[in-house]
Amino acid sequence: MASDQHANPKSDIDIAQAATLKPIQEIGDKLGIPASSLEPYGHTKAKLNFDFIDGLADRPDGKLILVTAMTPTPAGEGKTTTTVGLGDALNQIGKNAMSCLREPSLGPCFGMKGGAAGGGYAQVVPMEDINLHFTGDMHAIGVANNLLAAAIDNHVYWGNDLAIDPRRIAWRRAVDMNDRALRDIVVSLGGVANGFPRQDGFDITVASEIMAIFCLARSIDDLKRRLGNIVIGYTRARDPVTAEQVGVSGAMAAVLKDAIKPNLVQTLENNPVFVHGGPFANIAHGCNSVLATQVALKLCDYVVTEAGFGADLGAEKFFDIKCRKAGLAPDCTVIVATVRALKMHGGVAKDALGAENLEALKAGCDNLVRHIENMKKYGVPVVVSVNAFSSDTEAEHKLIQEVVAGQGAKAVIADHWARGGEGAREAAETVVATIETQSADFKPL
Amino acid sequence: MASDQHANPKSDIDIAQAATLKPIQEIGDKLGIPASSLEPYGHTKAKLNFDFIDGLADRPDGKLILVTAMTPTPAGEGKTTTTVGLGDALNQIGKNAMSCLREPSLGPCFGMKGGAAGGGYAQVVPMEDINLHFTGDMHAIGVANNLLAAAIDNHVYWGNDLAIDPRRIAWRRAVDMNDRALRDIVVSLGGVANGFPRQDGFDITVASEIMAIFCLARSIDDLKRRLGNIVIGYTRARDPVTAEQVGVSGAMAAVLKDAIKPNLVQTLENNPVFVHGGPFANIAHGCNSVLATQVALKLCDYVVTEAGFGADLGAEKFFDIKCRKAGLAPDCTVIVATVRALKMHGGVAKDALGAENLEALKAGCDNLVRHIENMKKYGVPVVVSVNAFSSDTEAEHKLIQEVVAGQGAKAVIADHWARGGEGAREAAETVVATIETQSADFKPL
Amino acid sequence: MASDQHANPKSDIDIAQAATLKPIQEIGDKLGIPASSLEPYGHTKAKLNFDFIDGLADRPDGKLILVTAMTPTPAGEGKTTTTVGLGDALNQIGKNAMSCLREPSLGPCFGMKGGAAGGGYAQVVPMEDINLHFTGDMHAIGVANNLLAAAIDNHVYWGNDLAIDPRRIAWRRAVDMNDRALRDIVVSLGGVANGFPRQDGFDITVASEIMAIFCLARSIDDLKRRLGNIVIGYTRARDPVTAEQVGVSGAMAAVLKDAIKPNLVQTLENNPVFVHGGPFANIAHGCNSVLATQVALKLCDYVVTEAGFGADLGAEKFFDIKCRKAGLAPDCTVIVATVRALKMHGGVAKDALGAENLEALKAGCDNLVRHIENMKKYGVPVVVSVNAFSSDTEAEHKLIQEVVAGQGAKAVIADHWARGGEGAREAAETVVATIETQSADFKPL
Amino acid sequence: MASDQHANPKSDIDIAQAATLKPIQEIGDKLGIPASSLEPYGHTKAKLNFDFIDGLADRPDGKLILVTAMTPTPAGEGKTTTTVGLGDALNQIGKNAMSCLREPSLGPCFGMKGGAAGGGYAQVVPMEDINLHFTGDMHAIGVANNLLAAAIDNHVYWGNDLAIDPRRIAWRRAVDMNDRALRDIVVSLGGVANGFPRQDGFDITVASEIMAIFCLARSIDDLKRRLGNIVIGYTRARDPVTAEQVGVSGAMAAVLKDAIKPNLVQTLENNPVFVHGGPFANIAHGCNSVLATQVALKLCDYVVTEAGFGADLGAEKFFDIKCRKAGLAPDCTVIVATVRALKMHGGVAKDALGAENLEALKAGCDNLVRHIENMKKYGVPVVVSVNAFSSDTEAEHKLIQEVVAGQGAKAVIADHWARGGEGAREAAETVVATIETQSADFKPL
Repeated sequence: MASDQHANPKSDIDIAQAATLKPIQEIGDKLGIPASSLEPYGHTKAKLNFDFIDGLADRPDGKLILVTAMTPTPAGEGKTTTTVGLGDALNQIGKNAMSCLREPSLGPCFGMKGGAAGGGYAQVVPMEDINLHFTGDMHAIGVANNLLAAAIDNHVYWGNDLAIDPRRIAWRRAVDMNDRALRDIVVSLGGVANGFPRQDGFDITVASEIMAIFCLARSIDDLKRRLGNIVIGYTRARDPVTAEQVGVSGAMAAVLKDAIKPNLVQTLENNPVFVHGGPFANIAHGCNSVLATQVALKLCDYVVTEAGFGADLGAEKFFDIKCRKAGLAPDCTVIVATVRALKMHGGVAKDALGAENLEALKAGCDNLVRHIENMKKYGVPVVVSVNAFSSDTEAEHKLIQEVVAGQGAKAVIADHWARGGEGAREAAETVVATIETQSADFKPL
Repeated sequence: MASDQHANPKSDIDIAQAATLKPIQEIGDKLGIPASSLEPYGHTKAKLNFDFIDGLADRPDGKLILVTAMTPTPAGEGKTTTTVGLGDALNQIGKNAMSCLREPSLGPCFGMKGGAAGGGYAQVVPMEDINLHFTGDMHAIGVANNLLAAAIDNHVYWGNDLAIDPRRIAWRRAVDMNDRALRDIVVSLGGVANGFPRQDGFDITVASEIMAIFCLARSIDDLKRRLGNIVIGYTRARDPVTAEQVGVSGAMAAVLKDAIKPNLVQTLENNPVFVHGGPFANIAHGCNSVLATQVALKLCDYVVTEAGFGADLGAEKFFDIKCRKAGLAPDCTVIVATVRALKMHGGVAKDALGAENLEALKAGCDNLVRHIENMKKYGVPVVVSVNAFSSDTEAEHKLIQEVVAGQGAKAVIADHWARGGEGAREAAETVVATIETQSADFKPL
Repeated sequence: MASDQHANPKSDIDIAQAATLKPIQEIGDKLGIPASSLEPYGHTKAKLNFDFIDGLADRPDGKLILVTAMTPTPAGEGKTTTTVGLGDALNQIGKNAMSCLREPSLGPCFGMKGGAAGGGYAQVVPMEDINLHFTGDMHAIGVANNLLAAAIDNHVYWGNDLAIDPRRIAWRRAVDMNDRALRDIVVSLGGVANGFPRQDGFDITVASEIMAIFCLARSIDDLKRRLGNIVIGYTRARDPVTAEQVGVSGAMAAVLKDAIKPNLVQTLENNPVFVHGGPFANIAHGCNSVLATQVALKLCDYVVTEAGFGADLGAEKFFDIKCRKAGLAPDCTVIVATVRALKMHGGVAKDALGAENLEALKAGCDNLVRHIENMKKYGVPVVVSVNAFSSDTEAEHKLIQEVVAGQGAKAVIADHWARGGEGAREAAETVVATIETQSADFKPL
Repeated sequence: MASDQHANPKSDIDIAQAATLKPIQEIGDKLGIPASSLEPYGHTKAKLNFDFIDGLADRPDGKLILVTAMTPTPAGEGKTTTTVGLGDALNQIGKNAMSCLREPSLGPCFGMKGGAAGGGYAQVVPMEDINLHFTGDMHAIGVANNLLAAAIDNHVYWGNDLAIDPRRIAWRRAVDMNDRALRDIVVSLGGVANGFPRQDGFDITVASEIMAIFCLARSIDDLKRRLGNIVIGYTRARDPVTAEQVGVSGAMAAVLKDAIKPNLVQTLENNPVFVHGGPFANIAHGCNSVLATQVALKLCDYVVTEAGFGADLGAEKFFDIKCRKAGLAPDCTVIVATVRALKMHGGVAKDALGAENLEALKAGCDNLVRHIENMKKYGVPVVVSVNAFSSDTEAEHKLIQEVVAGQGAKAVIADHWARGGEGAREAAETVVATIETQSADFKPL
């Protein structure tokens, strides 16, 4: 969400730096996590130990709320902001609730994208740390990725017992940076001692298969098993070769032993948030880690999480991959929409979005309607949350609510960006009411 | 130091895992560091904040003891073990003392070398963490290195206003891993969008110039200035181009803002140790950070530190580069020797080192004598610490002591490997007496 | 044409080596070329000098006959054989005639393809020389191609006044060999002195743009102008850069000064043949040089030439590119067909082609009919020449003749493979009669 | 030899183009070569057939005269000019004589060096042809070189039965051009179908091992055997692999079947010259082909040939490699010197060489004296030929003659550059007298 949602706002970074953070153990205390199980990283970040996690197995699960969106436009929608704001609002209306977010890649941060910790008064803090090294998860994933890569070339170098065809090595290296120079490279030049030359390349770390695996693993053992199953390439006879065969999956799991522990931080309103795992939505499933979501469900009555891109891509991956693989059953789907984006879908140019245009808005609502229809097929009740901008008119909000009502769902206007959890109370109440009145019957497609 | 120094020992890792560690704040308390200034990384590692460091300026400095060694052999000497053991022993005899060590590279750990946290009962803990991700310093240095590399290629890509000659870019990329495939590569293949192809390569992170700079910086501002001065390559007219000109030194400093804070851990005897910075001794100066050493001198009466390789290479770099640049004045030089290594210098084969051989020992002592002579030229008094092995004989120890006495110095027998600080008490007492009776007059060459 | 057209044949090479060749000057004498204008290359190959060529301008042109084919199949058609056999047959029936062929690439000769000098008793000799170095044309074209490539890299190396973007250099190198290793390479590695690294590759020489240009040039001056117009790449601003701008087109023309002279050889029946130029039909126009064809038309009353692939690709390129650019007006189009290939188009498997199958043959004739229709659109009368095999039956031949007659054209059975010009006399007579009775009105599309 | 040897000269190319060449068969007639054994390449170049060569075996050998030089300087010496002029002069004084020269590489011609056909009035013609494609030898050698290279990569591609280690392929590709971009390259990029990537490079064709072999071969069979023995690389176990094992030496010999035949051309005075083979003197032996020299010795009473660089490098290679391997026994060694070069060795700057300076000349003569001493060790009598310049003074010539006389040898002043054979008559007479009076006793070192 851009920081210019309203006239004359403070910037995200100003708001974040002005925040009063509580020591992370106080946040842990709220969730019943003892100090011995909460490993601090500085005073306001922590990782949750497995001795504690392993003891949660028999607890009942809270309600799982997915935040997704209409088809994105350059005008912005506000999924992360809504996820954070809804979590704060649920706490405001007295619920035991928390949010689960993805952790950002350093790569796009140094590139064009902003960070991924919400915006306005619906942010997760310490924002700068989260956007930089955070607790080192991204580094560990990069190391695990590159350890496998080095082990493959090393295996070929020392006799190549597995008969890997160097031309058919599919495992690429990773770097947590947008570095065009490394996309397509030739390695192992310089003579016999540097191995067998071949074409290779670096992907951004969040696009590594390790990140996708990491976010689907339910435990360290499960992670190790999944790492071992990675197909790293093929023999000349085109038989697949796995990381297990290369003999490096144990070391990779060791490298990831801390990274796999969920990271605890807080919102501006000092409510707990897990920020853990962040596979790219375009090439992987684009959701935070299964482990963080599962732990959150054991610790809270309401857990709000999000999926990348629009509902057609992100929510479907969340349902069909993450939920199905992890045995999760969501209870409510919140579709984020904005007046501006709907008008854009209705044909209005970006610089004319400030003016009321009910006709274009109506036309653009076709997009929203279709997403509602799609989401309903999963058997989970839908709420629409309109992320309010100062340029919106009442007539526009009313029109959206009418259209959504026509789909048998409710649209609420949410103003968490400007007012924090206070601004999303109606949304929170609507979600709670929806969950209590419409029982979900989740079925992945 | 190999773990087979004596018959039937427990392995280093067994000893380390059996240790009873104190919460890192307790170690900080010993040094007078308030909780607000000690950022925990888990329960037994921490970083020291600059608000505290900046307040130390007016305190007097403690005594600085350098641990160096005779010319290394495959038989092992024990510099790190002696540094740790001497620190523990100084504490045992009632002194306010701590050690300063280099932090290890993950690269050689996955390769052939052991970690770098001492051995036997003279270790720094938590050993596994220190040898793996530790507090993320190595990752941050790698990111800073590669951020500069990416910025250079990016600058060339977007019009190359600085007229950098792509063939004369001297800045290489870095990875914290022994990866022969990346030593000599060609980057930016794959078409126009990936930039201008050129030969490049990755160095191991500890060999990055960033690491050398990092260890010489006295403050964040000094670090930023030094980063800006890096020569990244040359124009076609062979004019140098700096990181400052590329416009990326500020971002690099931001990436390093946490890494630059000294890391506090403890010995097996719960005495404080700074483990911070670790440039390769072969291509850089091979000492821990100036910042850690300076802070330690403000916090303790005695600070023990080490330098890589033998005295001729490592100690001289310590004196001529680190001390001169940082304005440090060492008070005592401890040269580590072993009976086995001296016999090897005297011509004994590795598998015959177990038998007493006074003649070979005497011949090998030439090496030790020369190092003593060299060290004296720096105006700092010398003590020889003989790192005892169970196969050593009394006659051998006595012979070394006679030879060293002939040089006007004292040789003590130290057994910290087997007995911790207790085993190095005589060494500690000798060092203290030497400092008190022989005033150093340090002059770099 | 495979050498197994009939049972118990002598191989092409046996026939070629048993041939009695006349001194090339005797062949030249037949065409009225004085010894001073015929440069010998050994005793049976020669190049025609421009002093002689330039004197031909005012002579009238002979009749131009194009040999093309139905859609090719693995069963073989025999275009080159027909071109040679028809030339011999025209001489047999008393006409002053010669053929013009493409010169073969050494590349495919060392690879899978046979040479390109006809087959059976309809061959051009000396076959081995023609298939190996011949008169050096292919080498000269390769040198011209690579001289331009070297000049481009040299220009970039020495300051790059033209601001060529190394990533946008489109000119590739050439080698007269099938060498997969050279298709995709990186050049200029090894340091500053070797230039700016970039991706490059080698094409087979016959696929070089130089070869295409060479075959369209009407004179040395025209060649030089065309060479200068080659676009070798683009600047960063995407402006094209030409060989002329690089300053190398003069040197390229000098390298080609002998190659551009038509090569004279002879058939097994000692009739003259020009074998000159041979661009790949897949990426260029696939015909012999314009110069050779033009000179032949000045020297003979009938000139037979061929175009690569089937009529839809090869003949259309001949008409639309070569004839239009060179101002040539063909007088008759001969479409080569075989019973076997027609049956294959009719659905018969390769190993069942030996048996009579009139139904399949009839179905397959659809292909031939369509080619006849297409060729007629160019305003040039069509003759079909059935290249006879010993397994053909009379009923099959008759069926083809009926189908072709239905199109208003005549199909003749030709047996030059087994009997030389004697076997193609009817074809020759039909072509002559067609030219005399049906006046062509050539119009390229 | 630069064309500015004297004031106001005609340029080499002007002189060459003004020459009246005889038909090559007339030159052949002088040597007794029948037309059937002389394959023309144009009217003034020809190759000598093996049917004729094979019939020469029983003839006696003529006298062999080597032209070498003092240590070269930028001032120029004139070895090739002397070789040509001496041949013409021997003919002038009534001897049956010819010269044997190396054939030039196209590469340096397009680069900085001039051609290699002599200069002034001591030239070989047709100069431009010789410097361009000549009779295609260089092309054929390049093809043979690259055929082997392609066959190696092809062998690795199709299963690599010989277990060639791609990193240890030592055989490089060749191109007859100075192309810095191709010196250090990576090949076989672009995917599985293009083979296994590896570092490779192109040498200039004259530096190919094929060229060195070509020039040492005594017959086609010997050539084929030598080609088969080429070590193309090594297996992983470091066992050598040969071209014979790769199965390509037969095809390579076929490619070279015409190239191996000696090339006959003529001097400006219409005397016969063999120009055949030209390995680089820096990396190979730097002499023309053994075959040409052997045939010349059968056809003439006196054969003049040259070796690259100065006597210490070129003549020694000629004696120790070419003569020893081919069983040749030279009869006289001519050392070329110039006043200018001797003065330069004596310390005079290049732009001051025009003035008489006897002192510097005397000092520079040390160089000449040493070469005389060295040459004498081979048991072959020495003559010094001073290549005269218009700026030389009589006193200078006299001084050289005195110094040389002091070594027991004779120095003659030669002016063939300005006057052709006429200018080298004294040299010719001296050489003949030397051979007749001092019998050589050749012994390679």
